[in-house]
Amino acid sequence: METKDMQQVNQLSAETLTKMHAYWRAANYLSVGQIYLLDNPLLKKPLTLEHIKPRLLGHWGTTPGLNFIYVHLNRIINQYDLNMVYIAGPGHGGPGMVANTYLEGTYSEFFPNISADALGMKRLFKQFSFPGGIPSHAAPETPGSINEGGELGYSLLHAYGAVFDNPGLIVACVIGDGEAETGSLAASWHSNKFLNPVHDGAVLPILHLNGYKIANPTILARIPREELEQLFYGYGYKPYFVEGEDPEQVHRQMAATLDTIVNEIKNIQESARSNGFTERPQWPMIIMVTPKGWTGPKEVDGLKIEGTWRAHQVPLAELREKPEHVKILEEWMKSYKPEELFDENGTFNEELAALAPKDKRRMGANPNANGGLLMHDLNMPEFRKYAIDVPKPGKVTGEATVIMGAFVRDVMKLNWKKRNFRVFGPDETASNRLSHLFDLTGRTFTGEIEETDDHISPDGRVMEVLSENLCQGWLEGYLLTGRHGLFSCYEAFIHIVDSMFNQHAKWLQAANKISWRAPVSSLNYLLTSHVWRQDHNGNSHQDPGFLDIVVNKTAEIVRIYLPPDANTLLSVTDHCLRSRNYINVIVAGEQPELQWLDMETAVKHCTAGLGIWEWASNDAGQEPDVVMACAGDVPTLETIAAVEILRQQFPELKVRVINVVDLMTLQPKTEHPHGLSDKEFDALFTKDKPVIFAFHGFPLLIHRLTYRRTNHDNLHVKGYIGEGTTTTPFDMVVLNELDRFHLVGEVIDRVPGLGSRGAYTKQYIRNKLLDHRAYVTTYGEDMPEIRNWQWRQSKG
Amino acid sequence: METKDMQQVNQLSAETLTKMHAYWRAANYLSVGQIYLLDNPLLKKPLTLEHIKPRLLGHWGTTPGLNFIYVHLNRIINQYDLNMVYIAGPGHGGPGMVANTYLEGTYSEFFPNISADALGMKRLFKQFSFPGGIPSHAAPETPGSINEGGELGYSLLHAYGAVFDNPGLIVACVIGDGEAETGSLAASWHSNKFLNPVHDGAVLPILHLNGYKIANPTILARIPREELEQLFYGYGYKPYFVEGEDPEQVHRQMAATLDTIVNEIKNIQESARSNGFTERPQWPMIIMVTPKGWTGPKEVDGLKIEGTWRAHQVPLAELREKPEHVKILEEWMKSYKPEELFDENGTFNEELAALAPKDKRRMGANPNANGGLLMHDLNMPEFRKYAIDVPKPGKVTGEATVIMGAFVRDVMKLNWKKRNFRVFGPDETASNRLSHLFDLTGRTFTGEIEETDDHISPDGRVMEVLSENLCQGWLEGYLLTGRHGLFSCYEAFIHIVDSMFNQHAKWLQAANKISWRAPVSSLNYLLTSHVWRQDHNGNSHQDPGFLDIVVNKTAEIVRIYLPPDANTLLSVTDHCLRSRNYINVIVAGEQPELQWLDMETAVKHCTAGLGIWEWASNDAGQEPDVVMACAGDVPTLETIAAVEILRQQFPELKVRVINVVDLMTLQPKTEHPHGLSDKEFDALFTKDKPVIFAFHGFPLLIHRLTYRRTNHDNLHVKGYIGEGTTTTPFDMVVLNELDRFHLVGEVIDRVPGLGSRGAYTKQYIRNKLLDHRAYVTTYGEDMPEIRNWQWRQSKG
Repeated sequence: METKDMQQVNQLSAETLTKMHAYWRAANYLSVGQIYLLDNPLLKKPLTLEHIKPRLLGHWGTTPGLNFIYVHLNRIINQYDLNMVYIAGPGHGGPGMVANTYLEGTYSEFFPNISADALGMKRLFKQFSFPGGIPSHAAPETPGSINEGGELGYSLLHAYGAVFDNPGLIVACVIGDGEAETGSLAASWHSNKFLNPVHDGAVLPILHLNGYKIANPTILARIPREELEQLFYGYGYKPYFVEGEDPEQVHRQMAATLDTIVNEIKNIQESARSNGFTERPQWPMIIMVTPKGWTGPKEVDGLKIEGTWRAHQVPLAELREKPEHVKILEEWMKSYKPEELFDENGTFNEELAALAPKDKRRMGANPNANGGLLMHDLNMPEFRKYAIDVPKPGKVTGEATVIMGAFVRDVMKLNWKKRNFRVFGPDETASNRLSHLFDLTGRTFTGEIEETDDHISPDGRVMEVLSENLCQGWLEGYLLTGRHGLFSCYEAFIHIVDSMFNQHAKWLQAANKISWRAPVSSLNYLLTSHVWRQDHNGNSHQDPGFLDIVVNKTAEIVRIYLPPDANTLLSVTDHCLRSRNYINVIVAGEQPELQWLDMETAVKHCTAGLGIWEWASNDAGQEPDVVMACAGDVPTLETIAAVEILRQQFPELKVRVINVVDLMTLQPKTEHPHGLSDKEFDALFTKDKPVIFAFHGFPLLIHRLTYRRTNHDNLHVKGYIGEGTTTTPFDMVVLNELDRFHLVGEVIDRVPGLGSRGAYTKQYIRNKLLDHRAYVTTYGEDMPEIRNWQWRQSKG
Repeated sequence: METKDMQQVNQLSAETLTKMHAYWRAANYLSVGQIYLLDNPLLKKPLTLEHIKPRLLGHWGTTPGLNFIYVHLNRIINQYDLNMVYIAGPGHGGPGMVANTYLEGTYSEFFPNISADALGMKRLFKQFSFPGGIPSHAAPETPGSINEGGELGYSLLHAYGAVFDNPGLIVACVIGDGEAETGSLAASWHSNKFLNPVHDGAVLPILHLNGYKIANPTILARIPREELEQLFYGYGYKPYFVEGEDPEQVHRQMAATLDTIVNEIKNIQESARSNGFTERPQWPMIIMVTPKGWTGPKEVDGLKIEGTWRAHQVPLAELREKPEHVKILEEWMKSYKPEELFDENGTFNEELAALAPKDKRRMGANPNANGGLLMHDLNMPEFRKYAIDVPKPGKVTGEATVIMGAFVRDVMKLNWKKRNFRVFGPDETASNRLSHLFDLTGRTFTGEIEETDDHISPDGRVMEVLSENLCQGWLEGYLLTGRHGLFSCYEAFIHIVDSMFNQHAKWLQAANKISWRAPVSSLNYLLTSHVWRQDHNGNSHQDPGFLDIVVNKTAEIVRIYLPPDANTLLSVTDHCLRSRNYINVIVAGEQPELQWLDMETAVKHCTAGLGIWEWASNDAGQEPDVVMACAGDVPTLETIAAVEILRQQFPELKVRVINVVDLMTLQPKTEHPHGLSDKEFDALFTKDKPVIFAFHGFPLLIHRLTYRRTNHDNLHVKGYIGEGTTTTPFDMVVLNELDRFHLVGEVIDRVPGLGSRGAYTKQYIRNKLLDHRAYVTTYGEDMPEIRNWQWRQSKG
């Protein structure tokens, strides 16, 4: 096989390889042009300063390598009729992706004013890293990309996410040796233990070892070759080296290697697809060792450029100060012989253009890189049928995520054949009580499986790995290629992916503005085992601050839901799984808790986003004396329990209970589409009565959302104030003064005229808190009156 | 050498190994006791439910392995007089660390009520995972720990951080095979490329392959042995396997292996220390393969426990429901033969106790794990002498971080011999313009170095690796062992370590409450190349949201500084480097910017934390018509430029300019020690005049900090609203409406009575913004009047 391939390549050498080299020259020419030129795109006139951008912002170093790979992938796409997309991992590889999609014609199709002629080329050059133009790395604006090249480390995760359940797809993923030093990337090589060739596609990792980051050599470029090889064998790959400085020789090597690899991938897939999965294959990968800034200036002012860190950014940066450099730039660009590549009008040479794949096989036009085009709506079961029966509020106990798990299982079941829905989580699906999923499917794993393992299979559809980064990155890749998913995570540890969340939100925000990007399914988080129910794991596992990160993002993208019980969680989950282009954050507990709303009430409540709970209120349509607001399951429980005490102690006090499911309703309508108008807000929260707000997260978040509201000065928020340790559930709320007793105390402090009854009640709750302290430190569990508490009040 | 060691061990076998085994039994007994028992610690009475905790919250799975290793490390500490600390990476390994420090006596020294007798043992058992007690993982409360075992992934980073510049120290770092799946851990193996045996200590990684996480097998336990070995050879280690289920055999293997390894480490160090650094050594490591829940129940109710995921948490969890399990628990505990280990009074057998190292050699008492004890104050140069000359405000240009770099270089210089200060950053030290450091030292690297490399050396003291996680983890380990440091980072990408920041803040908060933990040096961030000066890198590099995460943390720990220019940056840096037990966040730009304050004014301004800039104000001690507040270098520039326009257009308008350096001054005094009293705040910001606040970050942060202030309703904040792309510096502020023109517009909207002059000025600024847009989209740089703007107003 290999000998035949080599012959094939040798056969190509006379004809195709020369053309491929010319194609590469064209891509390099266009890349340099983007970095430097404002005008004179074909260098028909002698190059002068006025043709050059005043601010030079591009990055040359990684680009020739990216171009080289792109040209070679084009060949194998044609030769083997491959369905392939390209991920450019290295930072600032934008010029390469743009140049290649321009050459293959897709760029002009997406952006008609960037036409395939001299005027288009001039615009192509000008727009790069220019105000009103395009970024310096692959981005949503870049045809063919599902990976933002700005923050490094996620390329391989996006690649794997893209090929799960996508058997026909191969993702060629170029990984920078700088990027390879990040935590996410280092861990993501192990994604091959979750890839099943029977129904997943293939990833072809291409580690581009050009040796340098911004100013430093890279680690992987400076370890002995033997260690480098062992590392990737150890990660489970079969590394092929493609290495050199002489383009002709590297062309030959790359072509031969790709032929070999395509055959290996096909063999792996054919064997698995005819015989079923037997063992994890050793997937091929490429380590391409070529100089940084390849084909650029070798030396400038006596300093070595090509092959060093100095090629990272702009090799000739001081053109105004050193006019002789303009000459060097001109020579450099002319070394690609543009006159052989483009005609008088700037049209790409026809024979070269013919090397590109056709139509949707072009990597810039592959619909997998614009996944909304391929997306099918989920076939959704009727969520109401999973409802827990709640004849009366606050008497029945249920585990919200257990019930949600049954619903999610059936979402998976109804879409089983389409294979377009997966659930992700860091080894916590069972811990988060979504175990009903395992009625239907197992955890995905293609490593060795032993008899005692629980629900693990190479065909499983629950993705578990002890890395939030991997879960997030896979899911992003899965969604951006047109599928659906859910990420369940311990609330505290979702902070590990704050930055990935940020970048995905930025992606969605930018993509929304691009007409040709089709909507994709929302990224849905279930944050559970949350701050209030990590009493057993302690302080390190307690943090609700992710919501603060989320609220910083633009209102078109983010949604936060705090369903107080199982039926509201069902309604919210149904809504989120149907939505598009959002990031939905659902916070809900997995422990047995009292249930409040029957299904129909729950649906109405979730549709409104917030509302008065009349059964718990006794203001009977009048202006209340105090508003007890709550958001989150545990704060809701404590609020209702506090209301019971208030009713007993102050029967005449008019209490209104408001529960908030959709946090964004609190913001002004001008800030968020879900926001209440001021009039609606005032009608609920009054204009001047004390509002005691029991909140799941940091109290300041509620103030951030409501500071412009009429009654904000009377809003008193209780929430997580950073206290906590290994203790009991109720002690957690006591430590943070969010418990029923502190809430009652707050009411007494804020509502005027409660008189001696108020003082008496203060003493009563003080004693209760002392009883609590004594009990938990003796027995290590909560007092029976707390553990067994139920809502016993009737209405009014 | 190896043969001799084996003989040595064989010699030990009759005497010491039996004792070591008994010591291990004691540690296991105490671990099980902590998980289950409230009383009856020595099992003198038959075990009944009333001796057992009602809530069982511990984790058994990892503990016997941790204990096993601890006992063996004790032997080599004694045998070779090693200075060693122990890092327990696996989740929930708390019982093991606690048991062992109790046996060696340190626990009772730190916590005298947990005495070395039956009463102490009862308390030891009860306090574990109990309200008012201790967490279930290693934590600040745990003697001998510098690694919180809650959020996984940082153990190896803490280990390396601890041994940099600590030549006498060996850190034995146990890494869980679950933890090994995280991004941070996967990348951190490469830390060996930054370790120089000449002046650094050694890390002995011990990968504990017990096969399971919570519910899943681990990746590394399910790849072929050959791949596993290659992986670690590839990472640059020499792996030794210690493997088995039969304790005696594993004891022998472990002892022999450790003898070999200690000799290897000594050889590496001796050779490097006599001959100088020649090449990166291949450091030894251990892969220990033993069953999860080793020595625990083999089977319960017909289900296999030992060696499976079921051993992860509490193997016998339903003791109330299944009383027969109480018997199993009793048999399990008795299998360790407590009567041979502890006497009647619960005192540990003297002969066994003699196996533990003495005094500070005990791993629980090693001062490296309570680094404040070893910390020396930095010898600080006089920061004033680095001042940039600022004869008048707003006329001289300077690069703040360049000037800071010279100061930091000399901090390093003055402490050169103590080797107790390092600077960390993800390949950005030069990009962040701290290059003066390279006058003195290089970047640390022990991989291969080539001629063209820039300031790279195995002796360098600037730590650069393209991973924010690695930088953060190393620095944490470095600080917690008593040294000092600075982490410079692109502002946007610091979000990558949000969760690590969180955990370090939690550590400091808990450590502050522990009397025996000595104060450590603060963790200092320089966030630069910040949101406003990432115009060239674009959207992905723009995010100031880390400040929102920081503000959620307790006021005793966090400080945020936004120095507006170079001299204020110097003053703030000096202050931060001298501080203890804080996390200081400094935000400052690296680009040439106008300078405002001479050195003495800067010191006064920073000491106050905020203040009126009289030279820019014209309210002349009277009540102003409008307050122009600013925080951050770019917002300050725009505010001053806006003031100039206001002076021209509305000479009669009384403008007060307030600059805020210390963001915490804005909070009420009750919330933060730096907070202004309401009286002070009102005196500055007035009670009823419009305040236009130009802020570096998300505007809502200012509202969070000030919502309780008298004049909050008149506070209008401009800041980052999520807009941005690759553009010009001024266009970035325009896109976010933070520029001088929008600020003037805001004044016109908020100050009543500006009449037709107001309308005229509105038109003027509208035209200016149109000019700007036309100019940048044509030329790609800012208008000369913006680029060359200086403050020309005189006072009053």
